[in-house]
Amino acid sequence: MDGDLRIIKLAEMLIEEGVEVYSYGLEKSELKEVNKCESIPELMKHSDIILGPIPFSSNGNTINTPFGKKNVLITEVLDNLEGKTLIAGSIKSNIYDIASKKNIKVIDILKREELAVLNAVSTAEGTIKIAIEETLKNIHGSNILVMGFGRIGKILSNMLKGLGANVSCEARKNSDLAWIKAYGYEPIPITNLKENLNRFDIIINTIPYIILDKDNLKQVRNDTLIIDLASNPGGVDREEVKKHQIKFIWALSLPGKVAPVTSAEFIKETLYNIFNEINS
Amino acid sequence: MDGDLRIIKLAEMLIEEGVEVYSYGLEKSELKEVNKCESIPELMKHSDIILGPIPFSSNGNTINTPFGKKNVLITEVLDNLEGKTLIAGSIKSNIYDIASKKNIKVIDILKREELAVLNAVSTAEGTIKIAIEETLKNIHGSNILVMGFGRIGKILSNMLKGLGANVSCEARKNSDLAWIKAYGYEPIPITNLKENLNRFDIIINTIPYIILDKDNLKQVRNDTLIIDLASNPGGVDREEVKKHQIKFIWALSLPGKVAPVTSAEFIKETLYNIFNEINS
Amino acid sequence: MDGDLRIIKLAEMLIEEGVEVYSYGLEKSELKEVNKCESIPELMKHSDIILGPIPFSSNGNTINTPFGKKNVLITEVLDNLEGKTLIAGSIKSNIYDIASKKNIKVIDILKREELAVLNAVSTAEGTIKIAIEETLKNIHGSNILVMGFGRIGKILSNMLKGLGANVSCEARKNSDLAWIKAYGYEPIPITNLKENLNRFDIIINTIPYIILDKDNLKQVRNDTLIIDLASNPGGVDREEVKKHQIKFIWALSLPGKVAPVTSAEFIKETLYNIFNEINS
Amino acid sequence: MDGDLRIIKLAEMLIEEGVEVYSYGLEKSELKEVNKCESIPELMKHSDIILGPIPFSSNGNTINTPFGKKNVLITEVLDNLEGKTLIAGSIKSNIYDIASKKNIKVIDILKREELAVLNAVSTAEGTIKIAIEETLKNIHGSNILVMGFGRIGKILSNMLKGLGANVSCEARKNSDLAWIKAYGYEPIPITNLKENLNRFDIIINTIPYIILDKDNLKQVRNDTLIIDLASNPGGVDREEVKKHQIKFIWALSLPGKVAPVTSAEFIKETLYNIFNEINS
Repeated sequence: MDGDLRIIKLAEMLIEEGVEVYSYGLEKSELKEVNKCESIPELMKHSDIILGPIPFSSNGNTINTPFGKKNVLITEVLDNLEGKTLIAGSIKSNIYDIASKKNIKVIDILKREELAVLNAVSTAEGTIKIAIEETLKNIHGSNILVMGFGRIGKILSNMLKGLGANVSCEARKNSDLAWIKAYGYEPIPITNLKENLNRFDIIINTIPYIILDKDNLKQVRNDTLIIDLASNPGGVDREEVKKHQIKFIWALSLPGKVAPVTSAEFIKETLYNIFNEINS
Repeated sequence: MDGDLRIIKLAEMLIEEGVEVYSYGLEKSELKEVNKCESIPELMKHSDIILGPIPFSSNGNTINTPFGKKNVLITEVLDNLEGKTLIAGSIKSNIYDIASKKNIKVIDILKREELAVLNAVSTAEGTIKIAIEETLKNIHGSNILVMGFGRIGKILSNMLKGLGANVSCEARKNSDLAWIKAYGYEPIPITNLKENLNRFDIIINTIPYIILDKDNLKQVRNDTLIIDLASNPGGVDREEVKKHQIKFIWALSLPGKVAPVTSAEFIKETLYNIFNEINS
Repeated sequence: MDGDLRIIKLAEMLIEEGVEVYSYGLEKSELKEVNKCESIPELMKHSDIILGPIPFSSNGNTINTPFGKKNVLITEVLDNLEGKTLIAGSIKSNIYDIASKKNIKVIDILKREELAVLNAVSTAEGTIKIAIEETLKNIHGSNILVMGFGRIGKILSNMLKGLGANVSCEARKNSDLAWIKAYGYEPIPITNLKENLNRFDIIINTIPYIILDKDNLKQVRNDTLIIDLASNPGGVDREEVKKHQIKFIWALSLPGKVAPVTSAEFIKETLYNIFNEINS
Repeated sequence: MDGDLRIIKLAEMLIEEGVEVYSYGLEKSELKEVNKCESIPELMKHSDIILGPIPFSSNGNTINTPFGKKNVLITEVLDNLEGKTLIAGSIKSNIYDIASKKNIKVIDILKREELAVLNAVSTAEGTIKIAIEETLKNIHGSNILVMGFGRIGKILSNMLKGLGANVSCEARKNSDLAWIKAYGYEPIPITNLKENLNRFDIIINTIPYIILDKDNLKQVRNDTLIIDLASNPGGVDREEVKKHQIKFIWALSLPGKVAPVTSAEFIKETLYNIFNEINS
């Protein structure tokens, strides 16, 4: 079952590697050698592992089927999955509840650490594209602040340094600050954040709570570009940023947009890891 | 005198650093503290060094004045420059001839080696933006061929490696191939080019003659992206590339487009170098 | 109180930054402006925080005092520390037991994550020195396997890549393998280790259990250099490695040997972090 | 014919690749499958290209034969080489004169640009080993000045940055300073050298004339390490450096010492380039 362009690419790769793939709800795609099933029950006859949409559902009622011709209800899917394994992305907690009652094993592939790491690479590249596009300066030689030293912070800092930027990273924990130093970036403890904010050409946030609040935004120069990569609520007070006329971009879901083929490859590798774990 | 956005930024920077700047033909810009002159003779009263447009002229008749309200003839400029120094970009050889008769010193700033090197940084970033934008894959982990190991080839390869690409560089000279190896890229002698062409996700050319001709293009996969950075005639047979339905982008004049502020800074630094040389 | 050269350097740095430092057991050092105390009780009058040797004791009876003229018993120290804080390195568990009875707060500074990270930088440099010294080849262009992707594995791989080596990293967890890929090294799952072992010019182990056992060592070429950075029992069967006449170096405690001044700086920064935590 | 350990390694590699190798003057080496000749005339029967010692001669009278049992006069060699090609290293100009009279083609392989570039990699690694060994600090985070931006300066700076050093490069030409900036090091024009000298933990010279003279050395801190890589007369006033008690190391001929196997590989590649040029 489907999702966005990544799913199509993924199906192509699996087929190419000799995996037998059966599909439902991908009618509009140009996928050729796949075995298209007419109904979910038919699909289930062939498969013990069902790969659902990534993300699974946007409305909590039907699953995401951008390449399908008709709506597919979540209940319709779950009713046919007893004893099987459902792998999909961004699965809400209520699905887990229903699934456990029906003896369905549910795996949210986007929660797999290895996929999150690999997706961070695509997110970093998408961010770099935005940074080149939306500034009048080179990345090379710019002063760039990365807020948060998690997966995206680590990989993005590494790439920005690879482009010749002067990279500073904000973090809270002493051990993270030690890592920042060890990798050759300037460590900025959160306690020193405010006084440093006016030094940066670009500020990139990865922390999902409002860290650039009214008070902190006063320190940001109005020729600074702010890119927020954090999911809701983000890390930037969006009202305030407008008032200060600071250029601000809230960039979400970059991997699927920037590099659907690579992203599909990463999903494939993660799938294989899951298969190995199921079989061992 | 003017040119594109870089010239406005340049004037702002010079003023900020305390240089007395007089202008003519920048009426439409928002430049404030500059001393706007009403005529070229008036301008000449104040200045021994005249910074003309970059590039100087597109039509061989008038100089480029995108921020000016009226046309300015080349002859009008040269008639007033006796004994002075004219610095501009992409100056045609006939201008040099006229200038030498009138005892005008002409310096083409775009021919300065240090500016060409620094501009290559901006070109490289613009190229990276295109590469991220126009492919479905990450740069990270991609196989990328850079053809030519001159200024742009060197800097671009360094940045692509900094992003995690597998970089191969094509060159002709053994010493260039040694440098390519020393910097950690895969050296591809031109004699081995053809047999390697089908390995690459992205091919970037920097050599200004048709190296990807009909014969070579047959080896290129049709999911490869080709970016040509070489000025006319470029390095790619554009008829053939279309026939093979290979994605092809001919990207010229990136520095002014991608990073006008940095580009203006580089021009400023080069100007200061020129001033130092004139005064020593 | 003392330890190795790092402690002398540390005392110098603290004094230079205006910290009032009192010492005992450093008689043989050339330390000048320190307030040397005649006895431990005298020392305790002046200080609430006592910095002991790093490492604290080698024999479980006296503390390490390479710069002192007489032996100092552990019991003698602990008897005078009631209500105070003792910071030292590699403190054995029985010390904690005694200390808790006497209301002494004990902090093992070598267990601080930030210090461990920073020390890994020094360990990596020491390893690189050994690798250059003990091979007939360049690091640049060599195939190097790093086993284990913890602190030392991460930092060492980064530096080896910075020197132009082809870096492969062995790990067990899928998420570590993803990080290895994201940082641009070749990931080698432990399940594929054996079949890859004969490809490497240098193998560096960071995992403290015998991973290069009899069986695995058979695959290692006898012109390979093996460096083991893991503390007892190390990661290499030392009997077998001799039999195969493979060059083998077991390198321990590199930070203090390779870079005592930097190492002292790292200890100082960690001390300040501890002080901040105590005071907040 | 012979030279140092590199020549033995080189012969081994050539044999392994199927080249028919005849030798004279390598009696003491453990080289097996080589065809050992009893005399120079016998050697000449088999070969049109003679690879002599690298370097060719230390005394101007006999060639260097550390692996040979008897002395071999230069004249003896040249008398037998009519119509042939002699490839060796560091050949003095008088040899060229004699050779041209005897119709011998002489090629000094150490003057080949590609070999000089590749050898610079080995020199850089040897320098890094010295820097780690002779300082009490990490390279990572140190302030290092590289004087001269030729082959060694370029490659060494790249590696030092790869280890996390703060790299500054001194140069004279504006275009070199632009390259230094483009590669992400701090450019120091020679005119600003003196005022910057006291900032560095390590100073590495690659320029073969006394640049660190009495006057400049006064600015260098006495805890700075100076490494001189320049051949005679070097770049450092050696009398003065002693007076100031600055740690100073004059490191020459590193490639053969640090990495004889890699160095032999580089010579082999260069030889093949020469063969190709002779045959085309």
